[in-house]
Amino acid sequence: MARGRDAVRFTVHVRSASCAARLGSVETPHGAFATPAFMPVATAATMKGLTPDQIRSTGSEIILNNAYHLMLRPTAERVAHFGGSHAFMRWDRPILTDSGGFQAWSMSEGTKIREEGVEFRSFVDGARILLTPERSIEVQNLIGADIIMAFDDCPPAREPESPPSDPQLSRKRRSRPEDHRTRLVEAIDRTARWLARCVAAHGRGDQGLFGIVQGGTDLELRRRSIEQICAFDLPGFAIGGVAVGESPTEIHATVRAVAPLLPADKPRYLMGVGYERDILEAVRAGVDMFDCVLPTRNGRKGYAFTASGPLRIRNACHALDSGPIDPACDCLACAGGFSRGYLRHLFLADEMLGPTLLSIHNIRHFQRLMVDIRARIRDDAWLDLERRWPVLQGGGEGPQPEEEPPSAAHDRGSGEACGQA
Amino acid sequence: MARGRDAVRFTVHVRSASCAARLGSVETPHGAFATPAFMPVATAATMKGLTPDQIRSTGSEIILNNAYHLMLRPTAERVAHFGGSHAFMRWDRPILTDSGGFQAWSMSEGTKIREEGVEFRSFVDGARILLTPERSIEVQNLIGADIIMAFDDCPPAREPESPPSDPQLSRKRRSRPEDHRTRLVEAIDRTARWLARCVAAHGRGDQGLFGIVQGGTDLELRRRSIEQICAFDLPGFAIGGVAVGESPTEIHATVRAVAPLLPADKPRYLMGVGYERDILEAVRAGVDMFDCVLPTRNGRKGYAFTASGPLRIRNACHALDSGPIDPACDCLACAGGFSRGYLRHLFLADEMLGPTLLSIHNIRHFQRLMVDIRARIRDDAWLDLERRWPVLQGGGEGPQPEEEPPSAAHDRGSGEACGQA
Repeated sequence: MARGRDAVRFTVHVRSASCAARLGSVETPHGAFATPAFMPVATAATMKGLTPDQIRSTGSEIILNNAYHLMLRPTAERVAHFGGSHAFMRWDRPILTDSGGFQAWSMSEGTKIREEGVEFRSFVDGARILLTPERSIEVQNLIGADIIMAFDDCPPAREPESPPSDPQLSRKRRSRPEDHRTRLVEAIDRTARWLARCVAAHGRGDQGLFGIVQGGTDLELRRRSIEQICAFDLPGFAIGGVAVGESPTEIHATVRAVAPLLPADKPRYLMGVGYERDILEAVRAGVDMFDCVLPTRNGRKGYAFTASGPLRIRNACHALDSGPIDPACDCLACAGGFSRGYLRHLFLADEMLGPTLLSIHNIRHFQRLMVDIRARIRDDAWLDLERRWPVLQGGGEGPQPEEEPPSAAHDRGSGEACGQA
Repeated sequence: MARGRDAVRFTVHVRSASCAARLGSVETPHGAFATPAFMPVATAATMKGLTPDQIRSTGSEIILNNAYHLMLRPTAERVAHFGGSHAFMRWDRPILTDSGGFQAWSMSEGTKIREEGVEFRSFVDGARILLTPERSIEVQNLIGADIIMAFDDCPPAREPESPPSDPQLSRKRRSRPEDHRTRLVEAIDRTARWLARCVAAHGRGDQGLFGIVQGGTDLELRRRSIEQICAFDLPGFAIGGVAVGESPTEIHATVRAVAPLLPADKPRYLMGVGYERDILEAVRAGVDMFDCVLPTRNGRKGYAFTASGPLRIRNACHALDSGPIDPACDCLACAGGFSRGYLRHLFLADEMLGPTLLSIHNIRHFQRLMVDIRARIRDDAWLDLERRWPVLQGGGEGPQPEEEPPSAAHDRGSGEACGQA
């Protein structure tokens, strides 16, 4: 049995009769969280401008740290010196750390993937770093999150038909001549070999290690990966390699096919997803955990989520608006009486309080959606949900968003510190 | 009687037997505040990253807005549209607005002072703006603070012997060939004429208008200004033209001489001062109110005030320090268990939470000093104070500051938005 197998215990309380959704809870050494759960991202052991009290005010019960960022700065050893991330950042509830594999690939220059591990340049000082499965687990053991993730080989989605807008991404993709399917197979098998090394390296009984299945949008490859990964007796499993460049339709189809194949008695975690509708679709497919930087990243850029769709707070139409971002919202910004006009002023004046308040609102928006989704599972009453959240209807009857946020639609927690372009 | 004369009522509760210090309170339409009072600066109707709850947590009972910034963005008319600054920024306690005269001179290019008013270029869009006494009062009536300030002519301190480091300041000073004393006399008399226009223009009975005395470090001129300004029946008086380039010794001497000449039954406000020792000296001279951007400006730059002197949180000596900024402090950062090592990490990683937590700490530092000062006035027991606050001893026995903060030692609320150089 894998070490830390009992550190994380999942209980399903209610199963929907009409779909694969389940209402549950996950117990960890730092308390329990209700599922389906949305985990906001505190990349460098801080959720940007939010104090832990403000994070708690959003209803978030578990947050994510990025091992990649913390191992480079202040270093995992230093986080351990302060008693681990919980003590370091003063967050006494559950934490999950990503393994750093995805970030090493997506955020660094000159990355080389070998059987031994991933070699990349540190964004802090340019030093060449070799991140192996063993080192990733050591780093995560030092950081001390309740849930740690396997170190995986996460390839991008298929070669895009038109060159992507990110020149760095483009260069990396062009540098891989091999057929995308061959690359996927390689990634799947390597992820399984690396998982065995992660399991062997894992040294703490109070941290649950989750495996990650790969395979892109190819369901045959996904099945192969699931067979390999779910052979390990782990307390949870994640769907990786999603939201790395595919369309929402592809994401939904992949998740619908993959989620039911994961063990029913373990929490299923869809990494880096996503928008409201993506989350709802995945919940209906049986997914229990989500993380995404959208609430904080878009909040910092002045985009607010509402039940009717996103709005750009800098737009002139808000200048004289004394109403809240979303009248239905009970976040510190909306319930606190901060008007759209005031928030717009903060952004135009480049005042720090603007990003802080919009991030609080956006996280609370997603947590309120999760509260509603959990209630719908309990009552198996789904129709009401889309009436209350017109944004879930996508191109349907709800008001259209004023403008799309500028950031990537889907993003697997690739680290906010470097994502402020 | 000047309009709004009764909007602000001052009561002295205790007078020190050993010095001119007094313990009192000022009642305003938005509640009372204890004096001597320190007012942190919320330039653009926001105190940088702090929510109103966080400002309250520092013990601040009154805050300052800059009319200059708000008239340019979002405009005073827009603040009025939202019900004034209290409603706009969600701060329901007393607010004081500076008149904009000092900022118009110190922050803008191509400023021209004429009898009619001050002409300057907007920092928002470069438009030429004429700010007159009447317009300043109109702007402050629109913003709706409890205490508003007269529009004054505030000249710099005498020509420095060596060129100042700020080239813009240097250019402005060189462009005024007239003798400094002549300029001071002109400023004094003009400030008095402008005060008459301010009193006539003041349109709200629920705002108290404070006069400002000028005269630099020349006590004869100060007396002349006091005679002119205190002839008006106003609810409070301020000492302006201090902390505009003089040495601490000159500031202390000026304040010691000027404060006792101001009406004893009205609050005395020393504008833009200052460091801990400056405040203590002024309190002993009979000053009741202070404002300064030091706590927030230095906090944003990573400098923390402590009872023993300032520290630079980025310094390597804090890297492994699990202690708080100041063990004696009860602010959200210190009492919340945020270590020096964590705060250093936030600054090195350029994370917004760092400036927010250091600003909260620094404001609380000044408010804790004021609490102690008020207790010393009540008990007339001053010796204990310097033992508890070694920083008050200046070059004395207390630990030396690690490094001086980079910002100007004294600064009359010249606006944080533009002061981040």
